[in-house]
Amino acid sequence: MPVATIDWTGELPGTARLIDQTLLPGETKFLELADVESMWEAIRVLRVRGAPAIGIAAAFGLLLGIQRFAGSDRAAFAAEVKRVADYLRTARPTAVNLFWALERMERRAAADAARSVTEQKAGLLAEARAIHAEDRAICRAIGRHGAVLIDDGSVLLTHCNAGGLATADYGTALAPMFTAHEQGRRFKVFADETRPLLQGARLTAWELQQAGIDVTLICDDMAAVALRDRGVTCVIVGADRIAANGDTANKIGTYGVAVLARHHRVPFYVAAPTSTFDRRIADGRAIPIEERAASEITHGFGRATAPAAIATWNPAFDVTPHDLIAGIITEHGILERPDTRRVADFFAHHDPHRGGTP
Amino acid sequence: MPVATIDWTGELPGTARLIDQTLLPGETKFLELADVESMWEAIRVLRVRGAPAIGIAAAFGLLLGIQRFAGSDRAAFAAEVKRVADYLRTARPTAVNLFWALERMERRAAADAARSVTEQKAGLLAEARAIHAEDRAICRAIGRHGAVLIDDGSVLLTHCNAGGLATADYGTALAPMFTAHEQGRRFKVFADETRPLLQGARLTAWELQQAGIDVTLICDDMAAVALRDRGVTCVIVGADRIAANGDTANKIGTYGVAVLARHHRVPFYVAAPTSTFDRRIADGRAIPIEERAASEITHGFGRATAPAAIATWNPAFDVTPHDLIAGIITEHGILERPDTRRVADFFAHHDPHRGGTP
Repeated sequence: MPVATIDWTGELPGTARLIDQTLLPGETKFLELADVESMWEAIRVLRVRGAPAIGIAAAFGLLLGIQRFAGSDRAAFAAEVKRVADYLRTARPTAVNLFWALERMERRAAADAARSVTEQKAGLLAEARAIHAEDRAICRAIGRHGAVLIDDGSVLLTHCNAGGLATADYGTALAPMFTAHEQGRRFKVFADETRPLLQGARLTAWELQQAGIDVTLICDDMAAVALRDRGVTCVIVGADRIAANGDTANKIGTYGVAVLARHHRVPFYVAAPTSTFDRRIADGRAIPIEERAASEITHGFGRATAPAAIATWNPAFDVTPHDLIAGIITEHGILERPDTRRVADFFAHHDPHRGGTP
Repeated sequence: MPVATIDWTGELPGTARLIDQTLLPGETKFLELADVESMWEAIRVLRVRGAPAIGIAAAFGLLLGIQRFAGSDRAAFAAEVKRVADYLRTARPTAVNLFWALERMERRAAADAARSVTEQKAGLLAEARAIHAEDRAICRAIGRHGAVLIDDGSVLLTHCNAGGLATADYGTALAPMFTAHEQGRRFKVFADETRPLLQGARLTAWELQQAGIDVTLICDDMAAVALRDRGVTCVIVGADRIAANGDTANKIGTYGVAVLARHHRVPFYVAAPTSTFDRRIADGRAIPIEERAASEITHGFGRATAPAAIATWNPAFDVTPHDLIAGIITEHGILERPDTRRVADFFAHHDPHRGGTP
């Protein structure tokens, strides 16, 4: 079992329990948050990170904000829900799941508007728990579908962290590994450290180690020789956004790993829920790539490791073209060799907007 | 002009002046060494690094050790030369150029054995200066031959540090850049930071910046998108050992860059003096690859950035097969598309053992 990133304790009033990811791997500290301001701060400073986990954190944050609402005035309660949601939306403006989860909570409140405040509160608790449970179910389904790629003796390579810490449960790229491990298979994982922010070293290596999986940490520039000389059988990575043709934006370095995998004839898989697809975007060229601060490269470890005033280029993501992708592991199964037609066919059979769990 | 890594000041007795590379890029400090023990320590702890620079440091170290020899007893002087050389050989047992330079100095002393001690000292000073001057000349020749690969508007990519700091002068991989810059061409360089020890960030970025060359520092996992999206026209790297078929061992990560360059149809060049060829080795499989301490990955920046007791794999070098190499830039010209036959032909025309400068 991976460590539980985030959970809700008790009924209402209750507390949100989450692991402080900024302290990992040096310290494993769980926070018990009892008010919405603490949750806002936790999202803001990345104590909780990863798109699905941020969505759950926002839903729990809304509960923290409204649970001590006193009285039975339904109009006042509706105003309070809106106020708390608006406040939470300012925590991290670029995280799509933050908005998605808060809108879903507000829709639930609106649907229950004729009920008593006590009933509305219970409805919101149920909705937040549903968001949490659905994410768990999606992780588990991705794990089930992806685990078929892992045999006894497999050697996997992953980049960045698409693990339990980014979700409610098994993660995406790491879910097949947790599932195969639970099924008793013995395999090995190489984890790229993933510069500049070292999510691979700090988070992926830690999660796999905690689960008892045989993980070896390497620097990013060692992935090529690992693929050539260490018998890597399969690459699995996560995704931040997937275009209608299967082009996939993910953490910087993913594209290079995909090219190296192709050169060594190792299949390269992306693991992501269908909600990661942005089908309004035809291909990866339309995905905007955030560029981040130079200090992540020049002072990534607390002290200067590069000359003063050096120019840097620090794209946070890159786009892997669909023709380098053997398949996308979703909660509905593996979408093999994605392209525009196959993505459309897949969605025709598995509408992600139907709601519910896989 | 690149910064002078190492130089001899005065006649005999004199001092060796070298830049303390362990302090770069935070501090640019030159050391004036007046005794052999200080030089031994400088080599040992990598204040001076890079195979050619270590050879020069050893020759200067021998001068420091014998320059205050008093008296005119030739037998005693010969014993002193041997004692100092043996002592310096213990500084860093794996650096081939250390042994090569000390043997050359001892041969000079042996050849002059019938002369006075004063004349022998003068001969050793001349020999050390010749080693220094030849390395400069080799760097300049590599720069001249390689500069034809760089046009106005070129965009280069390099990995690790094969610059002036590793040699007496222009370096190997960076020599064509310094030369083209002196010739007035305007171009751009991407420098991989080169984990785990960040020679690219600490040394290459600094050297190019000092020279006024337009350099952009990137993390290693950004090289793939730089090759695809930033118009890289040519990759140039150094070499630690080259087999008879052109297979090239160099800093870890070089092989991955070569594969990425091939995928993007960008020519990949190695720059190295002919002395880097080890023609007793048929191909790269016979080149031993040093594995280094886990702490370079887990504590590379003075604090833990990975979980305790995590397994790592830390090969210091990798081997790039000759078929990924467009050419090897040597002091005698560019050896195009190296393979066993072309390497043999090249050496038939340019015997590196004939001595002298290019």
